[in-house]
Amino acid sequence: MPQNKQILLDSRPEGEATASNFKLVTRETPPLQDGQVLVRHHFLSLDPYMRGRMNESKSYAQPQPLGEVMIGGTVGEVVESRSPKFSPGDKVVGMGGWQEYSVADANAPGMLRKVDTTHVPLSHYLGAVGMPGVTAWYGLVKIIEPQAGQTVVVSAASGAVGSAFGALAKARGCRAVGIAGGPDKCRYVEQELGFDACIDYKQHRDAQSLAKALKQACPQGVDGYFENVGGMVMDAVMLRMNAFGRMALCGMIAGYDGQPIPMSYPQLILTNRLRVEGFIVSEHMEVWPEALKELGQLVGSGKLRPRESVAQGLEAAPEAFLGMLKGRNFGKQLVQLV
Amino acid sequence: MPQNKQILLDSRPEGEATASNFKLVTRETPPLQDGQVLVRHHFLSLDPYMRGRMNESKSYAQPQPLGEVMIGGTVGEVVESRSPKFSPGDKVVGMGGWQEYSVADANAPGMLRKVDTTHVPLSHYLGAVGMPGVTAWYGLVKIIEPQAGQTVVVSAASGAVGSAFGALAKARGCRAVGIAGGPDKCRYVEQELGFDACIDYKQHRDAQSLAKALKQACPQGVDGYFENVGGMVMDAVMLRMNAFGRMALCGMIAGYDGQPIPMSYPQLILTNRLRVEGFIVSEHMEVWPEALKELGQLVGSGKLRPRESVAQGLEAAPEAFLGMLKGRNFGKQLVQLV
Repeated sequence: MPQNKQILLDSRPEGEATASNFKLVTRETPPLQDGQVLVRHHFLSLDPYMRGRMNESKSYAQPQPLGEVMIGGTVGEVVESRSPKFSPGDKVVGMGGWQEYSVADANAPGMLRKVDTTHVPLSHYLGAVGMPGVTAWYGLVKIIEPQAGQTVVVSAASGAVGSAFGALAKARGCRAVGIAGGPDKCRYVEQELGFDACIDYKQHRDAQSLAKALKQACPQGVDGYFENVGGMVMDAVMLRMNAFGRMALCGMIAGYDGQPIPMSYPQLILTNRLRVEGFIVSEHMEVWPEALKELGQLVGSGKLRPRESVAQGLEAAPEAFLGMLKGRNFGKQLVQLV
Repeated sequence: MPQNKQILLDSRPEGEATASNFKLVTRETPPLQDGQVLVRHHFLSLDPYMRGRMNESKSYAQPQPLGEVMIGGTVGEVVESRSPKFSPGDKVVGMGGWQEYSVADANAPGMLRKVDTTHVPLSHYLGAVGMPGVTAWYGLVKIIEPQAGQTVVVSAASGAVGSAFGALAKARGCRAVGIAGGPDKCRYVEQELGFDACIDYKQHRDAQSLAKALKQACPQGVDGYFENVGGMVMDAVMLRMNAFGRMALCGMIAGYDGQPIPMSYPQLILTNRLRVEGFIVSEHMEVWPEALKELGQLVGSGKLRPRESVAQGLEAAPEAFLGMLKGRNFGKQLVQLV
């Protein structure tokens, strides 16, 4: 049995999360039982939603239990199988968590999925052709429901969700406008991701100033907004929403540490007859096949060129995760384990 | 030509609206042209939306022009007709505005409608069987879409919209919980309108305290909320919303004078996967016939017994309107002119 390094949640954050909330341990992988598969992880996905799980408070999902391996998406290779469904060498995506190996039940629906790495690099199944990509797809296609020629906006545009959102929006003939932090990210969003414009929110002190910049970037107003951030950025976009606009609420990273993030102008929901809808992509498994197919084609054809920030080794995961929460990553944040 | 007293908007409010924003004038009614009808108003409707129209700022509707007769719904009797569609003596509902008489174009769709006062008193066509009733119907049926056994909540429950909402919700097998200001209104909401419970928001200093009371009144949580008020009341209900709850935003009377009314916990939209939707009933004329039919039956059968506050004479309209904005009315606010 190989030795397996794991990162556990050791304590819950009080305010900001810190490295001391995590604990590295080494254990042996357990012997396989019938129907089980041992997977060696090549990449571990780091995603903002994990910060929400670290809190005890009532959240949209079960809190991450203390003393257990941190939850998380993984891609890797089957190294041992006691199931006819998987063979050693198969490349798979799953929810293996923050560890080097995981044991998966081959019969549990949706737990482990074989993937084809001919046209799509393995790591992208954690990003553009994985949960973040499907998240963008669901918010755009099922909530915003844009028509060609409409203007859609996404915050955290250079990230895994935002970059997929831009490609999906352009494929539907929309004007795609991003919001990101810093000139490098904005340049990437405009030049490599194909957005029509990108606004650097760090250049703006308040929602009014950011709303002015949005007015320039969105001369026809905003018909659809995909929210990853909350707070000042959301206020600014709301000030530019058109009548009957749709807002898909996917993340509120600005409030993950428990600070208040009021919505300043809820009366705009009324006066502009907006529809504001929160969602969690794992509750809509029925759309995944269709969404993954389109996302795979966009990546395969080079229309979606997702960027990755890759930390090396499991020990690097906590700092990479904390950095991502502060926007220090550039594109999809991964940890490479092999 | 009869003399016609009118109330004009004379100036726009700075902050709170006052009587000095209005001006009473007397003019002659103009001679009728072909296709026109002269209506003598029996009742004038006073509604919170009018406060929004008094502001210059971009709103969901055209601002009320300065120097013109205040907009508003009216019921009355045709006194002269140059249209084959209407005869003197016809009882009609229309948008005649704050004046004693109005001239209406009989051919303009939706401007003037004959009503039957056999089972429904004329004044109710401005309330339960009129725009406020249809407003409640649309929010409940088209946005909240409740199932039998679910819990729905409405603020300003003793008002024209709230009382209709309660009857419509009970007719669908829901638990209906109201929020109103003061023990008299709450007693009326529970005992005469048939709500399952009513909470007096004036007994609560903040959203947390009000949310505790809601927890008692809504032991299964809140599946649908109809918002007439905004501010602290909305915050409190949001704290009790169930997963996949729906919120219909119809009014935000708390913010009509321009004061900030932030939504304190927008992250609940995400964590509870809420759908929050603003609407204006006049944009959904297609539902009016179905809604008015049900509302007429509820009133005719005594299942909906709307209460009215009736001010006497056109001169009383401004004070009655300002009082309504402060919640001094009890039920639908009307001005009786005949």
